[in-house]
Amino acid sequence: MSESVLQLYQQTRDQSVSFCAPLEREDYSLQAEAFVSPPKWHLAHTTWFFETFLLKIFDRNYVTPNDCYEVLFNSYYNGIGEQFPRPKRGLLSRPTVAQVLDYRLHVDRAMAALLADKSHPERDAIAARTILGVEHERQHQELFFTDIKYSLAINPMAPTYIDVPNIDDTQTAPPAWQHYAGGLQEMGFSGSNFCFDNELPRHKSYVAAFELCDRLVTNAEYQQFIDDGGYQRPELWLADGWATVQTEAWRAPLYWLSDDENATEYTLHGPRPRHAATPVTHVSGYEADAYARWANARLPTEFEWELAAADAAAADAAAADAAAADAAAADAAAADGKEAFSGNSGGVDTGYYHPRPAATGTGLKQLYGDCWQWTQSAYGPYPGYKPSPGAIGEYNGKFMSNQWVLRGGSCVSKAQQVRPSYRNFFYPQDRWQFSGIRLARDPG
Amino acid sequence: MSESVLQLYQQTRDQSVSFCAPLEREDYSLQAEAFVSPPKWHLAHTTWFFETFLLKIFDRNYVTPNDCYEVLFNSYYNGIGEQFPRPKRGLLSRPTVAQVLDYRLHVDRAMAALLADKSHPERDAIAARTILGVEHERQHQELFFTDIKYSLAINPMAPTYIDVPNIDDTQTAPPAWQHYAGGLQEMGFSGSNFCFDNELPRHKSYVAAFELCDRLVTNAEYQQFIDDGGYQRPELWLADGWATVQTEAWRAPLYWLSDDENATEYTLHGPRPRHAATPVTHVSGYEADAYARWANARLPTEFEWELAAADAAAADAAAADAAAADAAAADAAAADGKEAFSGNSGGVDTGYYHPRPAATGTGLKQLYGDCWQWTQSAYGPYPGYKPSPGAIGEYNGKFMSNQWVLRGGSCVSKAQQVRPSYRNFFYPQDRWQFSGIRLARDPG
Amino acid sequence: MSESVLQLYQQTRDQSVSFCAPLEREDYSLQAEAFVSPPKWHLAHTTWFFETFLLKIFDRNYVTPNDCYEVLFNSYYNGIGEQFPRPKRGLLSRPTVAQVLDYRLHVDRAMAALLADKSHPERDAIAARTILGVEHERQHQELFFTDIKYSLAINPMAPTYIDVPNIDDTQTAPPAWQHYAGGLQEMGFSGSNFCFDNELPRHKSYVAAFELCDRLVTNAEYQQFIDDGGYQRPELWLADGWATVQTEAWRAPLYWLSDDENATEYTLHGPRPRHAATPVTHVSGYEADAYARWANARLPTEFEWELAAADAAAADAAAADAAAADAAAADAAAADGKEAFSGNSGGVDTGYYHPRPAATGTGLKQLYGDCWQWTQSAYGPYPGYKPSPGAIGEYNGKFMSNQWVLRGGSCVSKAQQVRPSYRNFFYPQDRWQFSGIRLARDPG
Amino acid sequence: MSESVLQLYQQTRDQSVSFCAPLEREDYSLQAEAFVSPPKWHLAHTTWFFETFLLKIFDRNYVTPNDCYEVLFNSYYNGIGEQFPRPKRGLLSRPTVAQVLDYRLHVDRAMAALLADKSHPERDAIAARTILGVEHERQHQELFFTDIKYSLAINPMAPTYIDVPNIDDTQTAPPAWQHYAGGLQEMGFSGSNFCFDNELPRHKSYVAAFELCDRLVTNAEYQQFIDDGGYQRPELWLADGWATVQTEAWRAPLYWLSDDENATEYTLHGPRPRHAATPVTHVSGYEADAYARWANARLPTEFEWELAAADAAAADAAAADAAAADAAAADAAAADGKEAFSGNSGGVDTGYYHPRPAATGTGLKQLYGDCWQWTQSAYGPYPGYKPSPGAIGEYNGKFMSNQWVLRGGSCVSKAQQVRPSYRNFFYPQDRWQFSGIRLARDPG
Repeated sequence: MSESVLQLYQQTRDQSVSFCAPLEREDYSLQAEAFVSPPKWHLAHTTWFFETFLLKIFDRNYVTPNDCYEVLFNSYYNGIGEQFPRPKRGLLSRPTVAQVLDYRLHVDRAMAALLADKSHPERDAIAARTILGVEHERQHQELFFTDIKYSLAINPMAPTYIDVPNIDDTQTAPPAWQHYAGGLQEMGFSGSNFCFDNELPRHKSYVAAFELCDRLVTNAEYQQFIDDGGYQRPELWLADGWATVQTEAWRAPLYWLSDDENATEYTLHGPRPRHAATPVTHVSGYEADAYARWANARLPTEFEWELAAADAAAADAAAADAAAADAAAADAAAADGKEAFSGNSGGVDTGYYHPRPAATGTGLKQLYGDCWQWTQSAYGPYPGYKPSPGAIGEYNGKFMSNQWVLRGGSCVSKAQQVRPSYRNFFYPQDRWQFSGIRLARDPG
Repeated sequence: MSESVLQLYQQTRDQSVSFCAPLEREDYSLQAEAFVSPPKWHLAHTTWFFETFLLKIFDRNYVTPNDCYEVLFNSYYNGIGEQFPRPKRGLLSRPTVAQVLDYRLHVDRAMAALLADKSHPERDAIAARTILGVEHERQHQELFFTDIKYSLAINPMAPTYIDVPNIDDTQTAPPAWQHYAGGLQEMGFSGSNFCFDNELPRHKSYVAAFELCDRLVTNAEYQQFIDDGGYQRPELWLADGWATVQTEAWRAPLYWLSDDENATEYTLHGPRPRHAATPVTHVSGYEADAYARWANARLPTEFEWELAAADAAAADAAAADAAAADAAAADAAAADGKEAFSGNSGGVDTGYYHPRPAATGTGLKQLYGDCWQWTQSAYGPYPGYKPSPGAIGEYNGKFMSNQWVLRGGSCVSKAQQVRPSYRNFFYPQDRWQFSGIRLARDPG
Repeated sequence: MSESVLQLYQQTRDQSVSFCAPLEREDYSLQAEAFVSPPKWHLAHTTWFFETFLLKIFDRNYVTPNDCYEVLFNSYYNGIGEQFPRPKRGLLSRPTVAQVLDYRLHVDRAMAALLADKSHPERDAIAARTILGVEHERQHQELFFTDIKYSLAINPMAPTYIDVPNIDDTQTAPPAWQHYAGGLQEMGFSGSNFCFDNELPRHKSYVAAFELCDRLVTNAEYQQFIDDGGYQRPELWLADGWATVQTEAWRAPLYWLSDDENATEYTLHGPRPRHAATPVTHVSGYEADAYARWANARLPTEFEWELAAADAAAADAAAADAAAADAAAADAAAADGKEAFSGNSGGVDTGYYHPRPAATGTGLKQLYGDCWQWTQSAYGPYPGYKPSPGAIGEYNGKFMSNQWVLRGGSCVSKAQQVRPSYRNFFYPQDRWQFSGIRLARDPG
Repeated sequence: MSESVLQLYQQTRDQSVSFCAPLEREDYSLQAEAFVSPPKWHLAHTTWFFETFLLKIFDRNYVTPNDCYEVLFNSYYNGIGEQFPRPKRGLLSRPTVAQVLDYRLHVDRAMAALLADKSHPERDAIAARTILGVEHERQHQELFFTDIKYSLAINPMAPTYIDVPNIDDTQTAPPAWQHYAGGLQEMGFSGSNFCFDNELPRHKSYVAAFELCDRLVTNAEYQQFIDDGGYQRPELWLADGWATVQTEAWRAPLYWLSDDENATEYTLHGPRPRHAATPVTHVSGYEADAYARWANARLPTEFEWELAAADAAAADAAAADAAAADAAAADAAAADGKEAFSGNSGGVDTGYYHPRPAATGTGLKQLYGDCWQWTQSAYGPYPGYKPSPGAIGEYNGKFMSNQWVLRGGSCVSKAQQVRPSYRNFFYPQDRWQFSGIRLARDPG
């Protein structure tokens, strides 16, 4: 197994660096707000993760290239020790980009040796922990995209991360409602592949019958909400959301360029027209909730979403048994030890870093590859949840307050990274992720 | 029915004024922080509620004594219009106390006439809305106590709201765990009496087996947590909680007097010894959660709490059938159209405004009359929840984000005000309510 | 001498209480911003001043009624000890108004005995310190007016401190320039009466020839500045002033009511028409400076102002020698041991607490009784300045940075309180004093 | 004359770039606080200055390389238009360093052509404005050093700007007092060379006799102030200074490393021992004032300082007439059209970017080349001061409030840049300049 783990490790590590390739060296330190991190910091922190949770534990000969890194690149693991203040990550001109790349090389060599050591008594733990590190780095790859987008966007020169051809303003079908019967159901991850601790334990939950919209809310639909005074009508908003609208003077999604006759939005490919059929994205949970109320609908619970996604996956699996799986997907699945999920034609590997209009046809669309989907569920522990012991237990558990669960995946998620039980979580005021809206409602 | 509604109305209105009797006139304007309101404002706002949601709607001849009051005493009803800024309520020296009491009299007379009008075509709606206003005023009576406590406490002269004899430092029994089998259960209010809209609809929910501690955590137990470095150990805390501990420099519950050789705490009866057996109170949700983690336990979900409380109520009802109910309770129940619940020997009518040690004996103790009990449940809508139409719908629904549910009741709650399905809610950082800790755990 | 000191003491003390007579008891605690103090606090602090700097030093039998008062009513004397936080003075509901009046009585009795003790070895020091305390209390009487105006003004009910007949909108003459030759001059207080330490030592200063406007800038003139885009043109403003305009969104003087078709301003006599000829008041130093630049003039230096005022006083003295002094002024002068100054027909004893249009006639007008006049001089020590030893030395000296000197006096100053050498000082952004504009310019 | 202006221009422009040579490219964007600017921004803004105030005015064929630069690199000239927000200058990853260097080249070529155009009708104005631009760039060179020092210092890796040999901890002589008779004096710049508008007009001022310390306060002397409780004794401080000490938790000068057994301070040459004889530097005006009070002295006024410095310059000139001037200084003077001043053996051209102990011998020492010296004078206009018309008039005049004057020059000032009448100004709380303390006192 370790050969494929090593391969997975190296592919993931290489991809982090290659995602940075379009940047100028000056961009590597950008941190426009405390909640985003500079590209250089992501490159270093993901390295720190392998150093801290693998090499320093399992490789007794390992020597760090610089003792300062333990503090500088610790994100939030109090069990490891002090952390350099998050809002000042952009002020770390040293180590330089070159030094951080050296750091990566140093750790990669040590990791390769560790993974190649077939006689290591902790071989299984090493493999499992390495896979956790890979999933961690994938999460930071996604943050790399959303963070650099935020940091570049504040520059009046409107820099482009990378230029790509524009996508057709394809028509999209009108939304359709999918019906689900609910009942007493099993929730949470099952199976032998990787999952995060917050997807466990699998447990029973009662879900009443519900309906889910088959595609995401579009720019055109969201524009109607705005035109109908959506941002001026308190009765549509949660109290904390309304307060945020006032404080932040929100009048549109994050990257919609204001005073904009031509209806453009800032994207990683530069300012682009806001296509009517494209899913609205970079909305907060509060905006998603207000839109839903305006549309006489509501946000789904995370359990409703998971039920529907599991349903779709089961249907896909049945179909796949009857047909040859796509070769590329099979390869990726082989490397990863797992499979990509239904409706995931988008994602970061397409090289188009913006959501796209829904395909036509029946069934749930846009589950994973376009926008994360806000749910109404507060992020909390499943019944019987136990975080891992030690500092690694800080990964997920300590964030279980004040945040909302998002489900699905986005145009900068990796296809192999997502699944029906995956729980993403952000504060309801956060807008810099590729977050969108899927509506739910009670049966009529 | 309206006679008893009128009686209930008048009793409640009178009690608000009599709760203020021990104050100096200077105290009526006190607002030590934005989150508390001055006594005078509570007296006026509860009056505004009846004026706005009853008299202005159902009494076409009603004339307000001052047009300014509509804005000054609107708390948060955007549907009614603008509101005077909450943090500045303490700066409203005018209207004076005398003018506010006149305002109360003016509204009370109009309400008495309205309730006496047997031919009013909206008679049932008026009665129902009046009961809502009464419950609303009871909530503000409770806030009156917690707010004036907060505002008096910042005065170095340590003023006493009212002096009472000290309570015996009775021993309390060691905590015992009550076991509950859980299963697919019905949750939410049922019955014909009053409940708030957030207790509805009654719905199915699956609850795994759990155990609940039979009494609240005591001062002595919480002191052990402190002595064990509870406020210095990040691994015990949620991330947002730990950040708050740092920002606010928390080292003990809100009113524990620091540098305190004699272990006193500020109470509405002045500084008093912190009795070992008294429930710890004025802790935030974060502190409750950290304490529970330290104690190898957890906070209950609101569903676990409700299940256990409903169980206790059913047992009481069975016992009551077999015996004559206490005369005073019966009277109150008659006036109120509902009954007081098990374990509620405390509460505001005792005149002792501080939690007391648990009684001995078996069964769940301290459910209602001592401290509200933090749950781990984020405050959200029940499946199928619909707020009331119009501005009155802002009462509960718009607060369903970022807050945590507390269950039970406190030493300043009215016995007739609480029930198993009652959902109180505050931000997890809030400490000025009489909030305490009841532990839960998974069966071993 | 002590009889007249005692008389002066008692008159001053009585006047502080009688100035509060129009208030409701609820008004005594008002503190709308940190920079104002509640009436009750002024009453207590001035009492504390006599207690701290006289009774505790010179009366060995003196016992304070409450040890808490030492901290509660200490304004800023670090040499005495800790101070209750200034922004929270409005939260001290206790001591009550009645208790503060008792405190005043307690101190007044002890002071009367001390002043009557003809055998006290420190009799002269006691008299001198008592006069300082009287002048201190007069300053707080003036602050009482400006503070309560600020605190009442934020109430949407627009309470009136006291009602008086409106004043005629008299015409005022066009401004005329007075010419002064300057030269090497003596500055600072001279004579045997009271002055503050910051008016000393008298010293030489060279002043170039200058011209001073004979009256203050009027509302009508200031309106022209506004109409000419004064608040939108950065070139008229000091950099810190322009930043303040943006941050505070200033568009007019402090109490000009906005959205105001009828051109009213809030006064201590309630909202009143803004008369064209009335001096503009409640402008910051930044606004005064910007106005002057717009008018092709400048603010005077404090030395120019003093020179001109001394000139006017000398002319008055000469005239007075030739004529019988006004009887009332003579009485006041007798009580005070000093005389009132030229141009001071206004001031607090008129009972009209707002500036009035300039009289016609030649010579400098409106020197003292209408608005304090911003100078361009930063408040600093005179050459050779030495503050008094001990805590009393904190009275003036420690504020000699970042503030600007204002000269003259206002409609709420006492005639006996002002003189050519008197230096008032506030931050250039302060607007809640009765501060106005007198222009200066270099000879053409 | 224009040949020498061109030469001066080119030398200055080259020096700005060469000062950046020791940096990593990542350092060019560093902005650790809003009050410092990134090196790249200094390089661009000084270029913008020539573009805006020369090329766009005097060269009708000039084309800017990028229209965005007008806003991005405008510092504070409202007369030119909008400015990119100062606190976000560090977030401008674009234009890159390479692009900014191209911008410099672009402007330098156009400037060379403009200065070479002997037939230009505005040839004199161009030369004068170019010299202003050169002096402006020299000020930014100095800010470059103090800003990058501040920004590098926050990095736990303690990066060194450039390494140099340590300087001997030479002994310094005890301080001696120089006596000055004062009198009615002329102040302000006189002569035909360049000066800033704020040094004019030359005017009369009366200065009483005073004494000035012949050298700056040393680290060892300042340590005594600290050891004597200087930072804990409010009686030593101005009120605003004491408030700042509390808010900022100051306990030592800015770069003294705390918890420091070895008594080191952060310098542009890395952490170094705090030599006893080295002048204390990076103290605020408040600290300088408090130290002076502790030492039974005071800060000089700016007029006292200028008088003494003019005196020293006159003595030097007399000596120079009698001897051959130093060749290197003569060269610099030739290039600059002006001469270097007495006591200025330090300064940026020595390549040692830290103050050095005073030389022994008689007379005023350390006037220019070590630390700027706080005066007690608030920065204001001289009598008759007129700023230049147009946007260039914003250079100095609009800052004449709330700042204090510093006189002299520092270890990162250029020798040709300073003179007796030069007025530097910063807020009294500012500490990131090389600011030190020279004491004054009144004759005994």
